[in-house]
Amino acid sequence: MSYMERRLADMRQYRPDRTAPEDLEKFWAATLAEAKAKPLNDVRERTSTLSPYIEAYRVTYEGFDETPIQGWYLLPAFGGEGKRPCVVLFHGYTGGKGYPEQYSDLLMLGFAVFAIDVRGQGGETGNLLPQSFGMTRGWITQGLLDPKTSYYRAITVDALQAVRWTAEQPEIDPDRICVAGASQGGGLTLMTLALSDIPAKGIADIPNMCHMDYGILNSTGSLTEAAEFVSRHPDKLEAVLRTLSYFDALNLAERIRKPVFVSVGLKDTICLPETVFAVYNRIEAPKRLQVYPFNGHYTSGDHFRKMASFLLEPAESRAEDE
Amino acid sequence: MSYMERRLADMRQYRPDRTAPEDLEKFWAATLAEAKAKPLNDVRERTSTLSPYIEAYRVTYEGFDETPIQGWYLLPAFGGEGKRPCVVLFHGYTGGKGYPEQYSDLLMLGFAVFAIDVRGQGGETGNLLPQSFGMTRGWITQGLLDPKTSYYRAITVDALQAVRWTAEQPEIDPDRICVAGASQGGGLTLMTLALSDIPAKGIADIPNMCHMDYGILNSTGSLTEAAEFVSRHPDKLEAVLRTLSYFDALNLAERIRKPVFVSVGLKDTICLPETVFAVYNRIEAPKRLQVYPFNGHYTSGDHFRKMASFLLEPAESRAEDE
Amino acid sequence: MSYMERRLADMRQYRPDRTAPEDLEKFWAATLAEAKAKPLNDVRERTSTLSPYIEAYRVTYEGFDETPIQGWYLLPAFGGEGKRPCVVLFHGYTGGKGYPEQYSDLLMLGFAVFAIDVRGQGGETGNLLPQSFGMTRGWITQGLLDPKTSYYRAITVDALQAVRWTAEQPEIDPDRICVAGASQGGGLTLMTLALSDIPAKGIADIPNMCHMDYGILNSTGSLTEAAEFVSRHPDKLEAVLRTLSYFDALNLAERIRKPVFVSVGLKDTICLPETVFAVYNRIEAPKRLQVYPFNGHYTSGDHFRKMASFLLEPAESRAEDE
Amino acid sequence: MSYMERRLADMRQYRPDRTAPEDLEKFWAATLAEAKAKPLNDVRERTSTLSPYIEAYRVTYEGFDETPIQGWYLLPAFGGEGKRPCVVLFHGYTGGKGYPEQYSDLLMLGFAVFAIDVRGQGGETGNLLPQSFGMTRGWITQGLLDPKTSYYRAITVDALQAVRWTAEQPEIDPDRICVAGASQGGGLTLMTLALSDIPAKGIADIPNMCHMDYGILNSTGSLTEAAEFVSRHPDKLEAVLRTLSYFDALNLAERIRKPVFVSVGLKDTICLPETVFAVYNRIEAPKRLQVYPFNGHYTSGDHFRKMASFLLEPAESRAEDE
Amino acid sequence: MSYMERRLADMRQYRPDRTAPEDLEKFWAATLAEAKAKPLNDVRERTSTLSPYIEAYRVTYEGFDETPIQGWYLLPAFGGEGKRPCVVLFHGYTGGKGYPEQYSDLLMLGFAVFAIDVRGQGGETGNLLPQSFGMTRGWITQGLLDPKTSYYRAITVDALQAVRWTAEQPEIDPDRICVAGASQGGGLTLMTLALSDIPAKGIADIPNMCHMDYGILNSTGSLTEAAEFVSRHPDKLEAVLRTLSYFDALNLAERIRKPVFVSVGLKDTICLPETVFAVYNRIEAPKRLQVYPFNGHYTSGDHFRKMASFLLEPAESRAEDE
Amino acid sequence: MSYMERRLADMRQYRPDRTAPEDLEKFWAATLAEAKAKPLNDVRERTSTLSPYIEAYRVTYEGFDETPIQGWYLLPAFGGEGKRPCVVLFHGYTGGKGYPEQYSDLLMLGFAVFAIDVRGQGGETGNLLPQSFGMTRGWITQGLLDPKTSYYRAITVDALQAVRWTAEQPEIDPDRICVAGASQGGGLTLMTLALSDIPAKGIADIPNMCHMDYGILNSTGSLTEAAEFVSRHPDKLEAVLRTLSYFDALNLAERIRKPVFVSVGLKDTICLPETVFAVYNRIEAPKRLQVYPFNGHYTSGDHFRKMASFLLEPAESRAEDE
Repeated sequence: MSYMERRLADMRQYRPDRTAPEDLEKFWAATLAEAKAKPLNDVRERTSTLSPYIEAYRVTYEGFDETPIQGWYLLPAFGGEGKRPCVVLFHGYTGGKGYPEQYSDLLMLGFAVFAIDVRGQGGETGNLLPQSFGMTRGWITQGLLDPKTSYYRAITVDALQAVRWTAEQPEIDPDRICVAGASQGGGLTLMTLALSDIPAKGIADIPNMCHMDYGILNSTGSLTEAAEFVSRHPDKLEAVLRTLSYFDALNLAERIRKPVFVSVGLKDTICLPETVFAVYNRIEAPKRLQVYPFNGHYTSGDHFRKMASFLLEPAESRAEDE
Repeated sequence: MSYMERRLADMRQYRPDRTAPEDLEKFWAATLAEAKAKPLNDVRERTSTLSPYIEAYRVTYEGFDETPIQGWYLLPAFGGEGKRPCVVLFHGYTGGKGYPEQYSDLLMLGFAVFAIDVRGQGGETGNLLPQSFGMTRGWITQGLLDPKTSYYRAITVDALQAVRWTAEQPEIDPDRICVAGASQGGGLTLMTLALSDIPAKGIADIPNMCHMDYGILNSTGSLTEAAEFVSRHPDKLEAVLRTLSYFDALNLAERIRKPVFVSVGLKDTICLPETVFAVYNRIEAPKRLQVYPFNGHYTSGDHFRKMASFLLEPAESRAEDE
Repeated sequence: MSYMERRLADMRQYRPDRTAPEDLEKFWAATLAEAKAKPLNDVRERTSTLSPYIEAYRVTYEGFDETPIQGWYLLPAFGGEGKRPCVVLFHGYTGGKGYPEQYSDLLMLGFAVFAIDVRGQGGETGNLLPQSFGMTRGWITQGLLDPKTSYYRAITVDALQAVRWTAEQPEIDPDRICVAGASQGGGLTLMTLALSDIPAKGIADIPNMCHMDYGILNSTGSLTEAAEFVSRHPDKLEAVLRTLSYFDALNLAERIRKPVFVSVGLKDTICLPETVFAVYNRIEAPKRLQVYPFNGHYTSGDHFRKMASFLLEPAESRAEDE
Repeated sequence: MSYMERRLADMRQYRPDRTAPEDLEKFWAATLAEAKAKPLNDVRERTSTLSPYIEAYRVTYEGFDETPIQGWYLLPAFGGEGKRPCVVLFHGYTGGKGYPEQYSDLLMLGFAVFAIDVRGQGGETGNLLPQSFGMTRGWITQGLLDPKTSYYRAITVDALQAVRWTAEQPEIDPDRICVAGASQGGGLTLMTLALSDIPAKGIADIPNMCHMDYGILNSTGSLTEAAEFVSRHPDKLEAVLRTLSYFDALNLAERIRKPVFVSVGLKDTICLPETVFAVYNRIEAPKRLQVYPFNGHYTSGDHFRKMASFLLEPAESRAEDE
Repeated sequence: MSYMERRLADMRQYRPDRTAPEDLEKFWAATLAEAKAKPLNDVRERTSTLSPYIEAYRVTYEGFDETPIQGWYLLPAFGGEGKRPCVVLFHGYTGGKGYPEQYSDLLMLGFAVFAIDVRGQGGETGNLLPQSFGMTRGWITQGLLDPKTSYYRAITVDALQAVRWTAEQPEIDPDRICVAGASQGGGLTLMTLALSDIPAKGIADIPNMCHMDYGILNSTGSLTEAAEFVSRHPDKLEAVLRTLSYFDALNLAERIRKPVFVSVGLKDTICLPETVFAVYNRIEAPKRLQVYPFNGHYTSGDHFRKMASFLLEPAESRAEDE
Repeated sequence: MSYMERRLADMRQYRPDRTAPEDLEKFWAATLAEAKAKPLNDVRERTSTLSPYIEAYRVTYEGFDETPIQGWYLLPAFGGEGKRPCVVLFHGYTGGKGYPEQYSDLLMLGFAVFAIDVRGQGGETGNLLPQSFGMTRGWITQGLLDPKTSYYRAITVDALQAVRWTAEQPEIDPDRICVAGASQGGGLTLMTLALSDIPAKGIADIPNMCHMDYGILNSTGSLTEAAEFVSRHPDKLEAVLRTLSYFDALNLAERIRKPVFVSVGLKDTICLPETVFAVYNRIEAPKRLQVYPFNGHYTSGDHFRKMASFLLEPAESRAEDE
């Protein structure tokens, strides 16, 4: 057995305890009910791009609160009349929805795309979630003392509403909606798969929001903001760990019922392999894992082709772990 | 002439152009009028500390908007009955008001202290300023597209209201209020001296908010947030530079009329010596400069004693540049 | 005048001496004649992608020597029958031609694409240029003691042959070929524009191969390989500087006759602004410059849209400096 | 069990072998006898501060040899006539005793303070310990080939003499002397508690001089000086490890009989958690541990308040581990 | 048991699985036969140095292919007429054979020296091994998809031919040839000892080419080039691991029959202690290990003296592990 | 004019003011007189090496005070009976005299060698200079408040006494003594050339102790210790600058009367090119400069050969600047 085989075998067997709070299911049931009851108040406006082959719309909708979440809703101008499959995309931490042209690769596959801003971050979308306590630099410590006021809750509901909005569009086949994203976007993908029946499959690249009790001590990524918050306010340790546990895919993985494609870098110090495997190992749905043994926090090579294959496969064909 | 003499002589003569927008005075006149008209809605509650010699109050007041700004108002339990001088303190970026005990050194000089949180940062104070566009990590890009909605405006008014609140306290001699702080706190000190008649003197250690047109290109500190914001949104360059110019002490330095003590580190890469000298050289009030030739972004040695001397001097005695 | 205005004004006036050797024109005349006389020995094979809208070919051709240079030749499957414009793409240092799907954004604009590997680097293309002396890590020190054996010469000719090959393809309008690339790819773009009549315009993002006598002392990029080579072999200093001068766009800029779009980051430590401006200031053709004042070695924001606008403009419309 | 619980449980059970040399007790008995027999030759001179509420003395005394060790002896000017408790303070590596004002927080609690320089470091105190062999940068390799000539021995005795001096002052209640310090100062606190009957309690923040056989291989702190010394002189490995073992709190922890308050950062790379827990787990006296799970080599938040509580508790009340 | 004793005991017992491919012996038998059959086509030319006591020759010979490998062949001008022992030296990665004078220390011991360039690296020797696929920066990914075309194979044969050439020189006692080197040179030493009967002993300082299945995941040295190659071409993982296994001393260690002296640094992140011990523990020949507990990738102190002792000992005296 | 030519031309003209104190000559006259009057109390003992061709002696002598300075005195066992030339060697900061074998290259040229420890640093030599004030990590702040007690004074006199000792040895031709060293050793070389008539020439590689008023602000080397010292004790700035000026080769360069060979790296951040050129430009003796345009704090390539050429040239042949 080579060293890499040993390392992978260890990872395949890593199965830390869940950290779910008692009222986890109740919390999410209430959250989902509230979200469903809230109108989207969406606006969809045609916008021009430099490409004659992209039919582009600037969309705003309300997610968790009144914040107008912005997104690009994009359709290829070719490929005929029928309903299309759509990929709902969540970007990585500090990023934004970018520009329509950057989704050309997915459009070229015949997919529609709905790419949203995560609130407050590097896109054009603000954030009206009230901040009632101090924070460390970044976003994740907003409202972190209580799961109900947590930024994580807001962005998860924003993501769920994006999926709901997509399913309502006339051009889209609601049975062929896929959620996807990397890092933070991968975390939101897992949350969306666990909390919504709409997505038919999901792609969670190097996802965060996984095994956060481990990540807060070991990650060099966004969880350092929570760690620094506790360092400043040592008496808030329990409250912070409790809040995180509501948004940890480790505690929700078993709710996932649709095929999922996950990727992981064994040298990733941001979304550490321990955290990704901990969640992946608990997923009971059809699943596939792409391991990048020498990658840090990035996928590489022909990864887009692997994603595309997964997207193009019939959903009923069972994803198999590679 | 030694190299250090040459370097200092160059700095003493550095006098870059002001970047003031046409309506600078109008902007501040309106802002100050609005602030003055707004009630402070303050709450002052006795709190206990472990020291029997500190009379401590937890204070909240409203500054720029409805956000309850928190502060510690502290009086030494000794030193007699009369009205006291008071130091109003603004902390550095990402920090907070901390704990009452850490101001013991000033209390021991016989001063009262009012140490506030800068909104949203590492203290206990939230931030209700609405965020209506994306941001980069940190605070300063909030509302940065318009001076009226800018985070800088909010924290400057918060600081001014802190001074106003102090002047209203029965224990305080309103003619002996000093403003002080380091880095961001030094920037707020300069702003407060320029915009309020209340403070009798000010201590601006290694201040930021100085010559920001230079800093945004060269500083490794908080202005990198604005630089990254422009990098993401290149079309916002002009708007960002314009907003910054309203809060640049370079454009307000000549309004300062009270003695001011400034410090600078020649190896500071955050609040670069060029930026501090640019402002210092324009101050026409009594002034004193402490140069730390080998310091980065920190003061050192007996700096507290230098501050204390300045605080204890009669205000009318002219500060002299060392 | 703000600090940024001062900085830009300085850059606009930076005009260091050319370092051209006496026989520069002769060298290139001979090189170009030799290249023209050499058959391309090309192979073009249809290959499948996951997208039904990309007509993709795997191409090999011979550039400077017998090395089979690999490239993707891509056509959008939509957009009608006529001859198309084409973008010939050169990648950055250590990179490769990647995968067809990543050029979807250009295809979506209606352009054909020919994206080649730079020999020996991170793509699939080897390198048969003989190595007859020691090297430092990387590629650029291969044959560096003599312009005739230099790796730079080989990759420049490879780039020129790529343009020649493109002009021969039946689907392509030879009057609407654009060359483009970033960093190393930007350097090859400038070289190709200077040395070939075929391209109708070029996009040189944050280009290297500019003012290399400055870069070898100050850049943190690939020229450190040449610097380290000289450090190991101090007696080779003159020979190395001489070889570089044959491949320095500073010495060839005045040969450029077609519109060119250049970008530069003022905080770029790899392709330093001094080096880009030195060349840009000498270009006499229609030209346009995009300055990213806060960027290191990257473009950002809507840069693709700026490139697309430039590509879509009629070539005869004069590019204007912004 | 969450990851943090697992990590803490592991640390609580970490109990590496002691490395005590055979003659450890004899060595210290002789050292203590010698120290006790040596006159302090102390000088205590009133000095002025800017605060009218601090009664300050500049003190020199002889510790291990003739080096005059300097210290600030400080009394609050308030609080009445009786004998006072006193905190004897040892600073961190490379530091110094600083300035009287910086101890205002302890004075405000009603404590006297005696803050000394550690010899030769960043204060005003020299070092007459003879250096008879080469050293690496820093202090700890002085005399490191023999416990009798070791710098560690000198500073430990200096610390013990500071305690002895304090107990002799007329203003001080000798039953309420506390020793305290962080890092190096925490190490000296543990040593002093183990070797002297005078202190009534001690506060060892993120202490060094713990489990040094582990630290010399893994710490990034001052033990790297010893490691580099061995790297230069590989034949001295045994001698160095032997010397260190005389000054390792791991070997002396069981001698501690007074309540002790210890803090540790789980991400501390200087005084690694393994080293602090190894010693803490062996202490049999009343003890309390403050774990900062996300801190490197620093305490944070309201740590001063935790220290103050511990100081103010009656010594007989048993400290309990939190 | 101290921590260092525990750490060493663990290392002494570390015995990971071999990763040898089935045809390993066949591969090397064929390779050695081919090499033996190939003429050396060597040239030996007297060259002058500044020292009258060095008899120096510039040598070229053909190793694996037609590349003329360069070396310095050096004899002390003193020490009499008889045949001499000789040290064949292989340099570290990116280095070169340097200058004759730098081998004065070995000449002063009475040894002849043959110091060669490793092909293509920082010396004067080129590299004619064809490159038929892309590479990452550096040398080791050349031909890495197939053991037959691998750069490792070429340099190993170059080293073996250097030994063969040495044995043919009239001044040399062929029974007293030692191979030696550090890092890459240490790896080549182990390979040469395993694959040739000529060397009478070998010194492998902090050797690479050991337990490469571990190193490719954990080393910060040259194996990162292979790791990055796989990151770019994920489908090549198996091929790369397979190729490396042919050149991993872990799989050839048991073929070593002559005394060998190995050194290792416990803090070496390039040639990690796990990799060196894995190989050392499998060597069945007389062996000696020098552990530098606090060293990174370097030897230190009197290491040359330890090497000299080993060189001067009669070969038959059994090396003993220290 | 290429950029490098411009840069060199600037350096050649760099001529900052001297910073010499009024009593500089008096200070050195007294120091030299005192040193001359002091007996060397030297011990010279034959020691064995592993090489039969090195005649080695372990030497101790007293330099500035009673500290026994250790050195290796080495003679080649070959080369006949007459008096030999000798190189007196001073090592770089933190180093030591090492082992006799490492000087084989100079012995091979026929030179004797006397290589000494700089007191207190990484060799075997202690340091009895009393330390009467605090220090920062390292050596140079010892006694820095007064030129008379400065560590620089002690090591300069130690170096001078080494030269004096050498001239007294029966094997040595006192007219052919050369002083040499790199970095700190280069600084001591310049000092020795300026203050003693004995040396016939000197080699100062990348020397420190040059233009220290510039270095203390800009160097990343040992002068940061002085800078940090001032940072801790801001009131000592003048005293520190004054002390340094006594040991700054800038103020003594014009005393040098013997040929000197200097080297400099244009990218050296420790001994910055400005500092080396400032001194070199003031030397009026025959001089030669080797510029390494791409080197940091190291020489490279065939530098030893350049040194050897300089050593072997007749002293009367005028060194010429290259």
